[in-house]
Amino acid sequence: MMNKEELHEMLHPMKLIGLGGNQALAERIASALDKPLLETAVQHFSDGEIQVNITESVRGCDVYVIQSIQDPVNENFMELMIVLDALHRASAHSVNVVIPYMAYSRQDTKNRSREPITAKLLANLLQLTDIDDLIAVDLHASQIQGFYNIPVDHLHAMPILAQYFLDNGIASKDDDDVVVVSPDHSGAKLARTFGSYFDAPIAIVDQRGARYDAEAHDMIGDVKDKTVIIVDDLIDTGSRIASSTKSVLAAGAKKVYVAATHALLSQNAIDVLNELPVEQIVVTDTIKHKKYPDRMVRLSVARLLAKGIDYIYNDKSIHQIFDEQNRIQG
Amino acid sequence: MMNKEELHEMLHPMKLIGLGGNQALAERIASALDKPLLETAVQHFSDGEIQVNITESVRGCDVYVIQSIQDPVNENFMELMIVLDALHRASAHSVNVVIPYMAYSRQDTKNRSREPITAKLLANLLQLTDIDDLIAVDLHASQIQGFYNIPVDHLHAMPILAQYFLDNGIASKDDDDVVVVSPDHSGAKLARTFGSYFDAPIAIVDQRGARYDAEAHDMIGDVKDKTVIIVDDLIDTGSRIASSTKSVLAAGAKKVYVAATHALLSQNAIDVLNELPVEQIVVTDTIKHKKYPDRMVRLSVARLLAKGIDYIYNDKSIHQIFDEQNRIQG
Amino acid sequence: MMNKEELHEMLHPMKLIGLGGNQALAERIASALDKPLLETAVQHFSDGEIQVNITESVRGCDVYVIQSIQDPVNENFMELMIVLDALHRASAHSVNVVIPYMAYSRQDTKNRSREPITAKLLANLLQLTDIDDLIAVDLHASQIQGFYNIPVDHLHAMPILAQYFLDNGIASKDDDDVVVVSPDHSGAKLARTFGSYFDAPIAIVDQRGARYDAEAHDMIGDVKDKTVIIVDDLIDTGSRIASSTKSVLAAGAKKVYVAATHALLSQNAIDVLNELPVEQIVVTDTIKHKKYPDRMVRLSVARLLAKGIDYIYNDKSIHQIFDEQNRIQG
Amino acid sequence: MMNKEELHEMLHPMKLIGLGGNQALAERIASALDKPLLETAVQHFSDGEIQVNITESVRGCDVYVIQSIQDPVNENFMELMIVLDALHRASAHSVNVVIPYMAYSRQDTKNRSREPITAKLLANLLQLTDIDDLIAVDLHASQIQGFYNIPVDHLHAMPILAQYFLDNGIASKDDDDVVVVSPDHSGAKLARTFGSYFDAPIAIVDQRGARYDAEAHDMIGDVKDKTVIIVDDLIDTGSRIASSTKSVLAAGAKKVYVAATHALLSQNAIDVLNELPVEQIVVTDTIKHKKYPDRMVRLSVARLLAKGIDYIYNDKSIHQIFDEQNRIQG
Amino acid sequence: MMNKEELHEMLHPMKLIGLGGNQALAERIASALDKPLLETAVQHFSDGEIQVNITESVRGCDVYVIQSIQDPVNENFMELMIVLDALHRASAHSVNVVIPYMAYSRQDTKNRSREPITAKLLANLLQLTDIDDLIAVDLHASQIQGFYNIPVDHLHAMPILAQYFLDNGIASKDDDDVVVVSPDHSGAKLARTFGSYFDAPIAIVDQRGARYDAEAHDMIGDVKDKTVIIVDDLIDTGSRIASSTKSVLAAGAKKVYVAATHALLSQNAIDVLNELPVEQIVVTDTIKHKKYPDRMVRLSVARLLAKGIDYIYNDKSIHQIFDEQNRIQG
Amino acid sequence: MMNKEELHEMLHPMKLIGLGGNQALAERIASALDKPLLETAVQHFSDGEIQVNITESVRGCDVYVIQSIQDPVNENFMELMIVLDALHRASAHSVNVVIPYMAYSRQDTKNRSREPITAKLLANLLQLTDIDDLIAVDLHASQIQGFYNIPVDHLHAMPILAQYFLDNGIASKDDDDVVVVSPDHSGAKLARTFGSYFDAPIAIVDQRGARYDAEAHDMIGDVKDKTVIIVDDLIDTGSRIASSTKSVLAAGAKKVYVAATHALLSQNAIDVLNELPVEQIVVTDTIKHKKYPDRMVRLSVARLLAKGIDYIYNDKSIHQIFDEQNRIQG
Repeated sequence: MMNKEELHEMLHPMKLIGLGGNQALAERIASALDKPLLETAVQHFSDGEIQVNITESVRGCDVYVIQSIQDPVNENFMELMIVLDALHRASAHSVNVVIPYMAYSRQDTKNRSREPITAKLLANLLQLTDIDDLIAVDLHASQIQGFYNIPVDHLHAMPILAQYFLDNGIASKDDDDVVVVSPDHSGAKLARTFGSYFDAPIAIVDQRGARYDAEAHDMIGDVKDKTVIIVDDLIDTGSRIASSTKSVLAAGAKKVYVAATHALLSQNAIDVLNELPVEQIVVTDTIKHKKYPDRMVRLSVARLLAKGIDYIYNDKSIHQIFDEQNRIQG
Repeated sequence: MMNKEELHEMLHPMKLIGLGGNQALAERIASALDKPLLETAVQHFSDGEIQVNITESVRGCDVYVIQSIQDPVNENFMELMIVLDALHRASAHSVNVVIPYMAYSRQDTKNRSREPITAKLLANLLQLTDIDDLIAVDLHASQIQGFYNIPVDHLHAMPILAQYFLDNGIASKDDDDVVVVSPDHSGAKLARTFGSYFDAPIAIVDQRGARYDAEAHDMIGDVKDKTVIIVDDLIDTGSRIASSTKSVLAAGAKKVYVAATHALLSQNAIDVLNELPVEQIVVTDTIKHKKYPDRMVRLSVARLLAKGIDYIYNDKSIHQIFDEQNRIQG
Repeated sequence: MMNKEELHEMLHPMKLIGLGGNQALAERIASALDKPLLETAVQHFSDGEIQVNITESVRGCDVYVIQSIQDPVNENFMELMIVLDALHRASAHSVNVVIPYMAYSRQDTKNRSREPITAKLLANLLQLTDIDDLIAVDLHASQIQGFYNIPVDHLHAMPILAQYFLDNGIASKDDDDVVVVSPDHSGAKLARTFGSYFDAPIAIVDQRGARYDAEAHDMIGDVKDKTVIIVDDLIDTGSRIASSTKSVLAAGAKKVYVAATHALLSQNAIDVLNELPVEQIVVTDTIKHKKYPDRMVRLSVARLLAKGIDYIYNDKSIHQIFDEQNRIQG
Repeated sequence: MMNKEELHEMLHPMKLIGLGGNQALAERIASALDKPLLETAVQHFSDGEIQVNITESVRGCDVYVIQSIQDPVNENFMELMIVLDALHRASAHSVNVVIPYMAYSRQDTKNRSREPITAKLLANLLQLTDIDDLIAVDLHASQIQGFYNIPVDHLHAMPILAQYFLDNGIASKDDDDVVVVSPDHSGAKLARTFGSYFDAPIAIVDQRGARYDAEAHDMIGDVKDKTVIIVDDLIDTGSRIASSTKSVLAAGAKKVYVAATHALLSQNAIDVLNELPVEQIVVTDTIKHKKYPDRMVRLSVARLLAKGIDYIYNDKSIHQIFDEQNRIQG
Repeated sequence: MMNKEELHEMLHPMKLIGLGGNQALAERIASALDKPLLETAVQHFSDGEIQVNITESVRGCDVYVIQSIQDPVNENFMELMIVLDALHRASAHSVNVVIPYMAYSRQDTKNRSREPITAKLLANLLQLTDIDDLIAVDLHASQIQGFYNIPVDHLHAMPILAQYFLDNGIASKDDDDVVVVSPDHSGAKLARTFGSYFDAPIAIVDQRGARYDAEAHDMIGDVKDKTVIIVDDLIDTGSRIASSTKSVLAAGAKKVYVAATHALLSQNAIDVLNELPVEQIVVTDTIKHKKYPDRMVRLSVARLLAKGIDYIYNDKSIHQIFDEQNRIQG
Repeated sequence: MMNKEELHEMLHPMKLIGLGGNQALAERIASALDKPLLETAVQHFSDGEIQVNITESVRGCDVYVIQSIQDPVNENFMELMIVLDALHRASAHSVNVVIPYMAYSRQDTKNRSREPITAKLLANLLQLTDIDDLIAVDLHASQIQGFYNIPVDHLHAMPILAQYFLDNGIASKDDDDVVVVSPDHSGAKLARTFGSYFDAPIAIVDQRGARYDAEAHDMIGDVKDKTVIIVDDLIDTGSRIASSTKSVLAAGAKKVYVAATHALLSQNAIDVLNELPVEQIVVTDTIKHKKYPDRMVRLSVARLLAKGIDYIYNDKSIHQIFDEQNRIQG
């Protein structure tokens, strides 16, 4: 007699599609799930158009499309949209989208008159194609879940980063050496969450605009003679990390580490980061580049996302993933 | 020859409706606009149902409905929804909703599995009735604007509160006496914004869970011998203000003020606040109660909202309101 | 080899949720289905907000949510909406709503200018959360089914009431003692349907407005020396039943019974009904109260609703329920 | 200086379109409004398709399309839908639909399993083309207004019929000669409303199914020696009017009149009605036929509909029409 | 252990409904699938309304509704819409629509101002009832697929027609006797596709408007002494086929055949075609008539459509059908 | 007293926005309308994101956004979408989109299984932001108008191209020197339309797949000793023009001209075209490049689009533009 998983597999086989944004991560996820990636012919034509041909039937299948909306952001996003249109018209049973890095997440509100809310625009566009589920990782603001009417499974890579610091003896719950630092006010809550893995205090870099220079007095909280972990959700051009490093060192920090989920590394970020007096920059592989800064440690979210896909496909509660992550220990 | 405002008034007269949540504020707004409130017969029946009858034609009019979604939250919200349905069926030219206090704004994300995102649910419900515009005040998270596809005009009462501290000589850009304190990590950004009106430094109460008691060491940043202004978007049961007050005093603060936009004052908040050793609790009139704590100063948002309505009705840029507010001075 | 019911149960287990409107009926339904109610943490906070937490995974499940929209109507309705939002975001396979009593059903049309059609508003709100099916009982007007685009399974409690009269020898097809009376013109069709269970003639109370008092001449049809059953879909304040009783007695009725599906019992209905010279008031348990009038007989719709849920879950035709009900006999 | 009406006419000129269902009525309405009907080339091709060409620009205009959904029902309905699509694509400023007779109104609920609710289907179809307003006359059930999310202006022809009986001395408030009779239970409320124009009592024909023949005992209420007016919303095949006439005569009625808004006259209705021993059959011109029964009096709804169009176009409250109608007098 | 097909059949049994447009074809399809047609009571009433009653439960079933939108086009289309509404309300698991001939396909664009795009209107109407899939045959323009957001399975009858010419030795890849002719410019692509089955050259009738008569010089391409096959997607009144025949004969063609998928045969088409000097007119049975022209050969699309239904129901790729069709050989 | 145009300008001023795809054309259009382009700050960030800030209030304005969806196609399309989101949230009165070149128009149908219909996807995306009107130029297939539910004003640049040939004495109605050639079968209709401006016959290049080389025998129709104008809607890589040129020359053409609306010039098109033995390549400026092939003549569509905008803004019938174009003469 078949069990539920076998039944489901027979009725609605799982198909994985990895798009061009971060094909390497898609392959790692597929490997963790022990499933092949479906061959998808995506062509970028000389006139700028994208053409998609899915080489295998998906009729009645539960399809999981993996695409990082990394640079070139708009190209990757449209590639995803066109594939979703094709899957929808090809009578897939369900279409689930896995977005390790979601661009435009910082454009999540209207700060000035006549600004768009591009994170919401993307949410509307994605939902237009009638997708069933979105899996995302460490969105810039958790409220972005509310931009969607479909279920969003919001997974956290921060525990993976924290585990690294514990495993490598950089931080621990047993001593008081570490302070977690947020590079700005908005990040205070993330710093508190990250600090809780080590029972560490937090401090904040108080960026008060142009006329304040990066002196000791712009720190809120004490970092003197401490090992500092600057934590942020993403590293873009590296300038915020750079000024924060300057601030914590001026305030007497002993050593500096950086932790962030998404390594955008835009503009001359690699040069900026290479010149920083930090021990390590610990990030994940949600975004793929051709080269990385020295001292950058890339941890994979592939097993996390594979587990997410598996749990959703097999109707297991995603809650179990959070529970496991909460059992982190040093 | 008529000018644009006269033309608009002739084609689509402005009508104001003030519902039961905070009728007093609606009257103040109407008075600031020098317009009457349209008489609306809203009856709450003995079987729990609400019946609405709008006593005057609204066909072709631009209607502005003012309703605070304060306690009883669900009753007030449904009252609003039913009025919106009636206006829509009565062929109003446009229906604009003014919500001085929007309940459920703290339920703006999904923190645990199987939670609703009720702030988004409300957004969906409101938009169902095809409204044209939403005017809100100091939403708990600015991302809530992105829960809507219609234009949201998000007005800020914080400048009104800041002006009070300046006008009354409590804080000024010229001395270094004041520290603005956020009662938790999420509020650090609001504290920074509020502090900027006085060029004041900020500090944060580091609430690290149950085992930490409110000793001096839970402050991040220095408040010793300073005048502290604890700032938050809302005061609910008063317990967070109470523990923050305890923390800043233990850390050596000289005097404590409290500033918040929305005074929910639920449970025994009045007693809690009356017993606090604070100088003043400065709030606005977005929420109406029968009684208030001692030392509570209520500033009106009526002129702000009246200006918002006027600018929208007459196609003037809301941006001008922000510009005026930025010219705050002590 | 598994049969269809086992397959379905394995793929999409049935989950029952009983909300606060009428928890007692939900328990009776669950018991009739031999299934537990899923524990749902619904909290009504001191600031008037509702918070929902569903304690068990519903991913892939077919969920049936039972909620009577009884007084407090708006509170119960919003509680339901918030639970539906949570279930939708928690990836339930299907969400089915069972509403034993649907408030606002009498606001099903626009009788005067600028009235809402609140029954339609509720339909729009419910459908917004993408529910799959609605089970309702004796809606005030059967046209309300057409307010929905989703399937509505409209179950009838009237046969349960009729069976009671047959079982207890009050009415029978074999004698001519009974007349079924409608308390107003709109109810004539319901009276005819109810009368058909006993082959009884009907009469109508001709309420012609204020200047007519409840004298014999306001009866259409003959009730002299008869046992009268006044039948209505609901009893609200009891005043319509009271005046109808006065009318039929003035017209010479021998004995008076009352039959109605929904016992709202608002305002001072219990006192009003206690003072009426009627034999019995036979109602169902679609609405729960803390106390009831004397001589009120409450019949349960639990088995009817359990059967409805079972048939829908197992793809059996609801038509069979109607067929069984048509085989009523004395 | 221009007044509002002139402004509106300049900005959004009114255009009237009369379709094939009842072109004669459309012409009467246009004449009452003193406006021409826009020439619309509607062709019914030999392959069964309809082709539409609107001969004049409607860009920026407020268009009122008049179409009776009379037999051939589906042809007329699709003709309307195609014209609405054309107007929408031609950038009309608003499209308003005037439907003197709305077919399928009796299919307004689901009485048996697996029935459609065709009146709701039509509502959904009409709203798909984004119309702004619907004007309808005496819908079979007033709940049909709730099938729409757009404003429905539901006009009543019954006062026109009542006025006829008053004007011709057939009924009056001053004597007790008249009884208004409903041919079935559902019509009791309509009979009561119609009766109120003459302060007349009502009676009901109690159609209890096949085994009851049309003897005196199937009347509820007294018609002996009275002038009876049988009132119904529509006359279809005439058989219900015929059996009702037989019933009231058997019960001793002196004279019989018939009043109904919509004269469908399907099948052999004309023969049936010609043979009936009734004085007059008073109907309106919502439906057009090539010939009519003898003794049929057709009153025009053209002025009523013209007034509806004028009031909507000029943002006057439709309520005034109801008020005027309530001032009916004999 | 059950295989996938048995599982599906148990969970969601297939039900076939054949509507009145072309009941004969529906029966052939059912027979090819070895399944009965579900008995559906569709009544066309004397007042012009359609009433539908589906006699068997469809709850949880996958229903395939077969309806040709042939003359009477609007009647047949509304019949389909009403059945779809009934199925949707009856909780069918999926509703799939099979439309062998889709009327209004030639109204697929807006050639002049203020024209409708009726093919798009039909697409919108069909999708309103939430259907899951559309199976169509040789749509006038393949772009019509893009009028739909749901999956459209567009099947081709042209290979069936081509096979006939091969099987009967009229055309073959081995000789150069045949030229395929398009009766107008728009059909050039279809002619090329059809010609490819025989490696035949093509020619085009260059209809340049009124002043050109059907002389040899209006042919583009050479047909002299050739066997001509005039190919078109449909034959309406026959006049275009007639003038094309005249043109190719004037240009020296030896023999003329006609091939078309849809035989509308409107107006006096039968007479026109009977008088044409052509060998055979080969069409399919997508449209049913009471009588046909002499020399018309009707090939059935029943097996093609049965295969389409079977593949969709059993999640097999429709692509296989195209592959099989491409293996056509003489 | 104001006239309609002045009234409209006062109530809803016209605002023009020119985006980055083809800023030069936007400026020409603005100049033709004698209006400034609104300054719009569009930034393309180093991380690949686009940020938009509209520098002037658009509240209550009628905005016309001009953007060519040329290479980089996806970047330009997303830039447009983000601007539309900003305008919508900024309470523009109407948002109208002018797209001189619409990419993806060739992906207008599903030719193989599991292909997207990207032209429809774009239509859905554009309509999501609630735009009021789309102005497009020579869409690849006119059916694309039906992908939209909003009004599409489809303007034709072909008459501008034809006028050039007439004005320069290359073609005329008075001699028989010219043959218009379509490079493939699908273009036959366009060739016929273009030919009608000169009363010219047409011919078609019969591209029958790989094994046919470009010999004389692949022409359908006669070009010997004629001046050939190869006409197509767009020139992409130039290879189709190149092989067509080879074909017509092999078939004896005397001289070759090329006419096309959209000059994509992708890949090495410039080299390909420079090497072609053609007289002139006449195109429009719907697409902007840094350099162009020799012998390319670029005619501007600016006046055509300006007229389109003016007519729509002032509620004049677009039909007049077509009428003017039809009066083309040599």
